[in-house]
Amino acid sequence: MDILIKNATIITCNAQNEVLKGDILIKSGRIARIAENIELSIYEQSSVKVIEGKDLIAIPGLINAHTHCGQTILRSFADDLPLYEWLFEKIFPAEEKLTKEMIYFSSLLGIAEMLKNGTTMFFDMYFHEDMTAKAVQQAGIKAVLSRGLQTDEKEDIRLDETKELIYNYSSDKIKVFFGPHSIYTCSYVLLEKVAQLAQEFKTGVMIHLSESENEVNECYEKHDMSPVKLCSRAGLFDTICIAAHCVYVDDEDIEIMAEKNVSCVYNPTSNLKLGNGFAPVQNMIKSGVNVAIGTDSAASNNNLNMLEEMHIASLLEKGMYRLSDILKAEQILKMATVNAAMAAGIYNTGVLHEGFCADIVLLKANDFNMLPCYNPISNVVYSSNPSNVYATIVDGQILYMDGKLFTIDEEALVKEIKSIEKFLKESI
Amino acid sequence: MDILIKNATIITCNAQNEVLKGDILIKSGRIARIAENIELSIYEQSSVKVIEGKDLIAIPGLINAHTHCGQTILRSFADDLPLYEWLFEKIFPAEEKLTKEMIYFSSLLGIAEMLKNGTTMFFDMYFHEDMTAKAVQQAGIKAVLSRGLQTDEKEDIRLDETKELIYNYSSDKIKVFFGPHSIYTCSYVLLEKVAQLAQEFKTGVMIHLSESENEVNECYEKHDMSPVKLCSRAGLFDTICIAAHCVYVDDEDIEIMAEKNVSCVYNPTSNLKLGNGFAPVQNMIKSGVNVAIGTDSAASNNNLNMLEEMHIASLLEKGMYRLSDILKAEQILKMATVNAAMAAGIYNTGVLHEGFCADIVLLKANDFNMLPCYNPISNVVYSSNPSNVYATIVDGQILYMDGKLFTIDEEALVKEIKSIEKFLKESI
Repeated sequence: MDILIKNATIITCNAQNEVLKGDILIKSGRIARIAENIELSIYEQSSVKVIEGKDLIAIPGLINAHTHCGQTILRSFADDLPLYEWLFEKIFPAEEKLTKEMIYFSSLLGIAEMLKNGTTMFFDMYFHEDMTAKAVQQAGIKAVLSRGLQTDEKEDIRLDETKELIYNYSSDKIKVFFGPHSIYTCSYVLLEKVAQLAQEFKTGVMIHLSESENEVNECYEKHDMSPVKLCSRAGLFDTICIAAHCVYVDDEDIEIMAEKNVSCVYNPTSNLKLGNGFAPVQNMIKSGVNVAIGTDSAASNNNLNMLEEMHIASLLEKGMYRLSDILKAEQILKMATVNAAMAAGIYNTGVLHEGFCADIVLLKANDFNMLPCYNPISNVVYSSNPSNVYATIVDGQILYMDGKLFTIDEEALVKEIKSIEKFLKESI
Repeated sequence: MDILIKNATIITCNAQNEVLKGDILIKSGRIARIAENIELSIYEQSSVKVIEGKDLIAIPGLINAHTHCGQTILRSFADDLPLYEWLFEKIFPAEEKLTKEMIYFSSLLGIAEMLKNGTTMFFDMYFHEDMTAKAVQQAGIKAVLSRGLQTDEKEDIRLDETKELIYNYSSDKIKVFFGPHSIYTCSYVLLEKVAQLAQEFKTGVMIHLSESENEVNECYEKHDMSPVKLCSRAGLFDTICIAAHCVYVDDEDIEIMAEKNVSCVYNPTSNLKLGNGFAPVQNMIKSGVNVAIGTDSAASNNNLNMLEEMHIASLLEKGMYRLSDILKAEQILKMATVNAAMAAGIYNTGVLHEGFCADIVLLKANDFNMLPCYNPISNVVYSSNPSNVYATIVDGQILYMDGKLFTIDEEALVKEIKSIEKFLKESI
């Protein structure tokens, strides 16, 4: 059904950072028109759903540029532990127990959470990624998916799984990237192979890069260069490359990233939670690196709330650089929308613009934590929370509105999750 | 009306950090009993409201230990500016325009927001604090209030206003403290006078302390000692003293604070937003300083969301100390509840314990961002947001439930706020 949103405050995230008051007409999944007073013909009046938007703020759908949806089932499974104990004694043994079906429901859980906080697309890396793809199809959200790759006896099987993902699930809503996990879990030969395959399949790559000090130190010991330089030499930057974390990148690394159009995904919560520190985002932006924002997984966050992630993203840089006027609200909102889309080479979403996909989130402007409103962008980035999300629309389809998900059976999902939770509690 | 909450997950925040599954009986505003299966007599059945809690998590009401509710009306008024421009060119001129009536509605707005995110008490400092007191009475929330004090020609008037506040508003729900704004806005003589008055009136003191590097440097230039030592010498620590911020405190300062039982209020968001950095909370706790958590005002945050503040509080210390196992979830929740109560010398709230005030928040455990739940404390501190708050109860009175505030006319408040917003937009 086509939709007309009337009288809304429209934060476009376009190049001019326009904030308009007006109407958005959605036709066949696209933004057909943005104008001050759009009148419907008599013919249209019966076929167009009208949403009164005078108390609503419309923003481009948020894009969670780094997560592992299949891991949502491990939320609160292991917290407040040293990194290695967390990973090797808790997360890895639990992951051993996860079946394909569990990954499906875990992914659906993460997607349900994200739809409720205004996320319309996410970038993901995990195993049984075909199950995440199925959950994406069920929910109607968009995603860039990758099967996590690493070097061991199953290396080739995983590469084959990636190719199968590409064949079976690529669509308007799903892109499949190659997902080398990191330079410390992938051999140099594998990195090179992935670079070639990504070019061959005309797709991109996502990788965890320079996340911890350890990773960088070990890379220097082994390869006598930084992880960024290693990836560059392996050819990973000769295709679209999305690098998550980038906490420990120096000026030379940043220069390479800028020159090679590598996008960084800033994951402030995860980097803090795991004690890694914070990424020099301000320096990357100054040098021309495209930066997006991600929550990382519910096991290392512990939520997939992009509204909170935007707030923390801005705060952390301000506090650490001791500058209150950097990473401004409008810049942050772009990182969580259009920058993320560009990172994946997608140029028809992330901006409220005629002809673009109708990936739109409506926020309640009259909720008490959103009042007063001298600056709607400030209120979205610094003040909002998921209780303010009124609707989440993807390709013109309302996936969430007024507390209700329309493509996910909420009651059944709760039941499935509780049953998996019970199993994992008992088996580990 | 008395209340029986059945079958809830009860996070007590008691000394043993007990998490129970069971019932809470509330009688005459107090927690009468916590037990596994509380049966009501036939006589009680008609007079007790039963809340089915099998999908709810009960926690002690959150205490926002530092804010300026009267400033909520300046949310998004000035963001992303250098500190001095923000304060002198934006906030101060706007505050000049605020009338008593505006402060009343601004306070009510802040309280409405806080009730919706599970806050049952807040500590406040501002001008026209009698209006904030009236809003507190209207809403039924609890508060520790102070009229901000500083040195100028109106110094004595403000001290008199504090005394009037004490006479007119002290109650079971409202405590009045003296509120010397800071060592850089109050003369040493005023600090001494306040210390004497607080003792005379058998009450406490709240102050902004060592918030910025500037403050500390100037204090050394003028007084040849740290702000903490100056306050100690002035006698401010010889009564209950709540020190907000404490970003720049050294080991000697921390030792003095521990010895003198000075409580610190950690305001991570505000300290980051204004580019001040982060407080050495981990060191303070190790040295025995009682630490609570505050949001600061909506002008320097920009929300009064204690659920988010808890998450950020924990993350920031983990990230900055590069340690993932410090400031654990249970410690953070205590900082936001019982530690805050103790900071103000209040010993009948902040813990779910028989005989204590029924200041209780119920959270929805089955919302997708709260599932699965291997550890309910983790989910509350790291995963929850205001959309998960089901009910906020103060002294056994339900002030908020299922989306509705019961003591505040929500529609009328929105109207008032919009009218003040319009006035301020036009007049500045």
